[in-house]
Parts: sequence; C-alpha cells; structure tokens
Amino acid sequence: MKWKLLSSLVVVMLAAGVVWGKDSVMSQAQATFKPVPVKPPVLKNNPATPGKVALGRMLFFEPRLSASYLISCNTCHNVGLGGVDIQETSTGHGWQKGPRNAPTVLNSVYNLAQFWDGRAEDLAAQAKGPVQASVEMHNTPTQVVETLKSIPGYLPLFKKAFPRDKDPITFDNMAAAIEVFEATLITPDSRFDRFLKGNPKALSAKEHEGLKLFLAKGCSVCHSGVNIGGTGYFTFGVKESPAADVRPAEDLGRFKVTNTAADKYVFKSPSLRNIELTPPYFHSGKVWKLSDAVKIMGTAQIGITINDDEIGKIVAFLLTLNGTQPNVVYPIMPPNSNSTPKPAL
Amino acid sequence: MKWKLLSSLVVVMLAAGVVWGKDSVMSQAQATFKPVPVKPPVLKNNPATPGKVALGRMLFFEPRLSASYLISCNTCHNVGLGGVDIQETSTGHGWQKGPRNAPTVLNSVYNLAQFWDGRAEDLAAQAKGPVQASVEMHNTPTQVVETLKSIPGYLPLFKKAFPRDKDPITFDNMAAAIEVFEATLITPDSRFDRFLKGNPKALSAKEHEGLKLFLAKGCSVCHSGVNIGGTGYFTFGVKESPAADVRPAEDLGRFKVTNTAADKYVFKSPSLRNIELTPPYFHSGKVWKLSDAVKIMGTAQIGITINDDEIGKIVAFLLTLNGTQPNVVYPIMPPNSNSTPKPAL
Repeated sequence: MKWKLLSSLVVVMLAAGVVWGKDSVMSQAQATFKPVPVKPPVLKNNPATPGKVALGRMLFFEPRLSASYLISCNTCHNVGLGGVDIQETSTGHGWQKGPRNAPTVLNSVYNLAQFWDGRAEDLAAQAKGPVQASVEMHNTPTQVVETLKSIPGYLPLFKKAFPRDKDPITFDNMAAAIEVFEATLITPDSRFDRFLKGNPKALSAKEHEGLKLFLAKGCSVCHSGVNIGGTGYFTFGVKESPAADVRPAEDLGRFKVTNTAADKYVFKSPSLRNIELTPPYFHSGKVWKLSDAVKIMGTAQIGITINDDEIGKIVAFLLTLNGTQPNVVYPIMPPNSNSTPKPAL
Repeated sequence: MKWKLLSSLVVVMLAAGVVWGKDSVMSQAQATFKPVPVKPPVLKNNPATPGKVALGRMLFFEPRLSASYLISCNTCHNVGLGGVDIQETSTGHGWQKGPRNAPTVLNSVYNLAQFWDGRAEDLAAQAKGPVQASVEMHNTPTQVVETLKSIPGYLPLFKKAFPRDKDPITFDNMAAAIEVFEATLITPDSRFDRFLKGNPKALSAKEHEGLKLFLAKGCSVCHSGVNIGGTGYFTFGVKESPAADVRPAEDLGRFKVTNTAADKYVFKSPSLRNIELTPPYFHSGKVWKLSDAVKIMGTAQIGITINDDEIGKIVAFLLTLNGTQPNVVYPIMPPNSNSTPKPAL
C-alpha cells in the first residue's frame, strides 16, 4: 500500500510536470538555446555611443553609399521586413542578381561570423562588402569617402562619433558606425524566449511538441544558442544532396574561404529567429515555404523523412521565434553640396 | 523748424523700419507667401485617422507594392533625403530610367495638383501612377490587391483604416491611406516661415536682400503661396527656350494632358520649399547647382540676366526654405503567407 501510493505519486508528478514546474523539454531547451538579450551586446574595440549609433543608423539608410545613390544597406536588409528583401537572391546595381540570398540583419550580431560562408569576422567587416561588390552597391572606398566628405553635414556627425580622430570620415569608421547600429537590431521577447525564461504557458501544446521534435530529431545540433543557428559551419547535404536548384553546384560555400576540400558546400547555419519573416530560405533562396525547408533539412541533414504532422508541429514552434521588431526612426540625411559626385548609373 | 523736425522724423522712421516694425519686404512677402502650417490639412473626402495614417505609412514603405518587391514610394520619394531620390530622372523596374525628375513628396499636399504636368488631381490619384508605370513599380491594381490580400497582417489594418468597408483591401483604399500619410509629410518652421510670422531677425541681411530680389525680379509670380510654387502652370521658356538638355524637345509637358497647343512645354511650377535638399533641378533633372537653376530661370522665364551677386543673394534666401523634416518611424510590415505571389523580376 505504501509503495503503491508512492509510485502513484511519482506517476502523477511526472504527468503534472509541465504544470507545476519545469518539464524536461524546457530544461533541454534552456541548455541548448538562450533568449535574445534585451540590450545590444558591447562590441570589442567598437564601443557604442549615442552619436555613433545615430551616425550608423543614418549610414545604414544612406543610398549615396552606392554608386547609383539607389541602394542602401536597408534595400536588402529591410528593417521593416525582418531584415531581408524577400528576394531569392538580392538585386543590385544595374538590376544584377547577386549570388546568394540576403541573410537577415536582425540579431546578426550574435552570429559567429557574417555572410553565408563566414568570410567576414564581424559586422564592420561585413558592411564593407556590399558597398564594393559590383553586383550590389558597385562603389569603391575612395568614392564613398569622397562622397561623404562632400556632404558638409556628415563631418560634425563623424567628429561626434569618432572624437579622437583628426580625419574621422574614413571607410573604416563608416563600417564601425554601421556595426554599432546593426548591433541594436535585435528582437527580444519572442514567445519562445518567454518559454526559455521559465513561462511554460508561452507555448501552445502544438508548439511545445514542435520544440520537442526539434530537439529530438537533431535540428538543434546546428541550430542552437541565442540565434538558434549562426554558431558553426555545416555541410549542406551531409546525408543527401539537396536538389540542384536548392544547392547549386557552382556555389561551393566555405570552400572558397578556406580552400579546404572538406569545406565544399559548407555554410554557416542560419539563425532561425524571425524565420517566418524571412522567406525564401537557404543560401539559394529557392525554397519559399517554411514547411518545405523543414522537410529538406530532414532528408539533407539528418537523413530522415519528417512526416507532415511533425513538420506542422516544428513549423508551429518556429513561428514562436518572432521577437519584438526594431523601433527605428528614419534618419534625415544631410544634403549634397555642389562638389558631391553625381550618381553613376 | 517744426517742419524740419517732422520731416527728419519721417526719414528716421523709414530708415528704422526694419528694426521697429514691419519692413516693406516683409509686408510684400506676407501678401505673397504663407508659412507651412504646423498641422497637416484636412483632406476632402478622406479624413485622417490614426489607423489610416499608420497604414499609409506602412504602404508608403512597402516594396511589395512593386512587381519586383524592390521599389516602394520611399525609393524615389525618400523622406530622409528631402522627399526625393537625387537622380536626374528616377530609376525603376529593371533599372529603367523614368522620363522626369521625381518631385518631392514633402509639402506636396499643398500643390494644386500632382506630377510635373498636374495630371493627378490629388495625392491619392498620384499614388496609383507609379505603382502601375512600367518603368517604375511595374505592377497592376489586380496584382497589388492580390498581394496585399495574401499577407494576413494587412486585413486588420485595412479594416481599422476603413471600418465601413466590407472588403477594405482595394487599390483605391491603398491610395487613400498613402494620401493621408503623405499629407503628414510637411516641413513647418523654416527660417523663412519665422520671418513670415513676423520675426525680422529670422533672415540675415543677405537672405533678406535675396528675398527682396526674388520679389522684385518677378520669381514670385510663379513661386508663391504656401509652397512657394505649385500654384499654377507656366510655360518653361516663356522668354527664351532653355538648352535642349534642360528642356528636352520630346517632353511637351501639360500638352499631353490637355492636348492644347498653348500647353506645349507647360509645367506646374515646383515648390521651392527645401530646395537645397532636392537637386537636381527642373523636370529634366539636368541642372545640379541651385545657382545655375536661378540663372536659367532669369533668362528663360523673365528674360533677364541675373548677375552672380544677385544669384548669390537669391540662393541664400532659397536656403532659408528648409523646414523641420518629418519624424517617421520605420514601419514593421506584416510577413508573407504561402499564397503571397513571388516577386517578378
């Protein structure tokens, strides 16, 4: 009788786990993921000041960083559209198509490195890329600096942001200012983060099951940490090569950065934060439905078929990753002078 | 003695006019121009509500109104760049060049009609133009409505903005919402407006001389009212035809709207508000320097040569027309659904 009571009690306790304390899924999730912090991180060697963030915000929206005056950082990393452009691959100077899907700028400060292949170590290094890419902003550092110096209103803003520099308008300082602004583009307080912080009611039963599947199937091997991704490099197609349109043969991924055979078709695992907002998916941008992306991940990465019921639950979980989107006041940019170069089309 | 005293007093009174009361230039200016109001005007048949303004702001920045998902109203009417794109003529779908320079959206609600040729009677009619223009957003009303209806987050926003409509997501309602938002994009409190409101110290001596010249030379015949322009239609080249690049022969202006011979090369006089922010100038966008634009206006419209000293003063006056630029929070736009059409490039 005593044993029977005790064992019944244990059964009841286990069954009631979700209600009266931490369930094991929550514990596992807390060991695997971290909520997006409420405040932006402090950047090594690039401390944020209000002046630097304000300048970075202005430069992020500044189309005069591009040769045409038509393309700003925000063109492809639209802060009102989940930090992306909803294009398969981005469209740049002369309506050229870029080679890869634009990764979101939101929470990108938490990635181990930038770009799909991780070739930029931080957001400052990243910011210099598209400005110079011939298929993106099609500009040169010399021309960017000349343009910024020709706009009288920029000098006091750069001086305020970089008070120790005698000649503060430089390509490096442009990138540093953009980096501190981009570091503010974080999306805390998703429903999943409330769950991670201990509120079991933050997820519905279906979403909770989706999370459980996400952990059990092994998705979280590549998608973990603050960004639920962005923590390492993985072969796309480790178990089975995806279709040729989804993983185009000619894009060898990180191989181009490291020149190491093992890095062929290796990419940084993308963050799954706000994933609902950022179609289409994968570096090729060829997959528009999140459910299709989950299915492909099952076969290509884990070597399993995730059935439709499971996919529905995993997608339900993924939709809980939308955080509070950034509140950005559109900057008023200073006017040209007569010496400002004309746009080159 | 008595008469001498009196006449001296009159001389002193006249000379001191600027200091102790209204000068005649101020009186003339007040009869010719009006300050930009602090609050947006109430629109006939399209009352503003917070919900409608918020929806309009979102749609103004919504690139999914374009076939490519790359071009929003703000692309060519950048609220951070004086409401323009700093291009000679705008660049649109497929990197095509449009036929005319993009007029500023700022204070455009105070123009008698919209577009350089006045073919749209109001901002709602205007907003429908670029969405459908093949060289601009390259879209169709049907496709726009289909796209907006496929984005689930838009329905509650349209319902809130148009509570009496059973099926509120329409092309007309899109345009009406954009109109009420654009009507908020006004720039009060320029230094010239402070002068107009009675503060003689708001202008420097040079700027005051520029204003006097602006009135005396006849510039204010076409550039008057709240917008210092935008009040009527005038032949560009009434006294002397401008150079062929500045007034291209093939653009007959308002003739295309009215089919009346007298309307050949007739255009709406543009607003000179925030003129420093909106180069290049004229409907062709071929003139980058404000001083050159003033010179051309002298020969083409008034039949006089304005000398460099006078041009310097008139330009100094024109630079006092920069008002307080709009404070716009970047909208967070709702995500696609699986039924949202893909961008067409």
